[in-house]
Amino acid sequence: MEKFIFAREGMMKLPPGLRFQPTDEELVFEYLKRKVLSWPLPASIIPEINVCQFDPWDLPGDIEQERYFFSNNEAKYPNGNRINRATASGYWKATGLDRQIGSSSKNHALGMKKTLVFYRGKTPDASRTDWIMHESPC
Amino acid sequence: MEKFIFAREGMMKLPPGLRFQPTDEELVFEYLKRKVLSWPLPASIIPEINVCQFDPWDLPGDIEQERYFFSNNEAKYPNGNRINRATASGYWKATGLDRQIGSSSKNHALGMKKTLVFYRGKTPDASRTDWIMHESPC
Repeated sequence: MEKFIFAREGMMKLPPGLRFQPTDEELVFEYLKRKVLSWPLPASIIPEINVCQFDPWDLPGDIEQERYFFSNNEAKYPNGNRINRATASGYWKATGLDRQIGSSSKNHALGMKKTLVFYRGKTPDASRTDWIMHESPC
Repeated sequence: MEKFIFAREGMMKLPPGLRFQPTDEELVFEYLKRKVLSWPLPASIIPEINVCQFDPWDLPGDIEQERYFFSNNEAKYPNGNRINRATASGYWKATGLDRQIGSSSKNHALGMKKTLVFYRGKTPDASRTDWIMHESPC
């Protein structure tokens, strides 16, 4: 398998005309699960950062685009409404229901997708923002 | 400039999640004009074929997707309605107005985009199909 290197300094840099628009399945099964297993990736395109070291507006890459990161995250998901992802200016909080990725009928491992919203400030005075993050724990 | 090789045997093969969705400007100024000048391309992604050696349904690549080719074409565009692109089963015929690519205010060379429709059969009994090709002569 060839290695195409597009990830540099936390950013994805693609040749003109190329867009990274993976489906959830491509993300989880072609990239995330391979990454976790230390298998070769089809392309080095998803930068590795610690997502919570940045406020969302400071994350590397083009702010006009959806961005993708591998983030090594020790934080655990608690039950209920506890804060689970703190940044300098606020925190990410899970919202809605988790979505399943992939179908069990296909007889392969399933993935999961959480949706998180960024709140600015500290509880109980934090205010919800429009920043959304999807996370597939693995 | 690095060379990413995605074009093979007339087809574009991209790693999962990557799509080639260039704007007209990217196509003409980053790929076509560089190609004509024998400058290095940002990626080897557009296969070289002779488009008229294929009927449209036989063109290499994924029939569900828009496909891009460099085609070395000696045929000249005549004025009026003359047939100008013959394949085994029919011909491509220019339709509509040519569109300009790029703006002269940006002080760079302009590109041009023709639209052609595929007709099956021979004139005068040929029937128009849904196959569309855009061409930027260079």
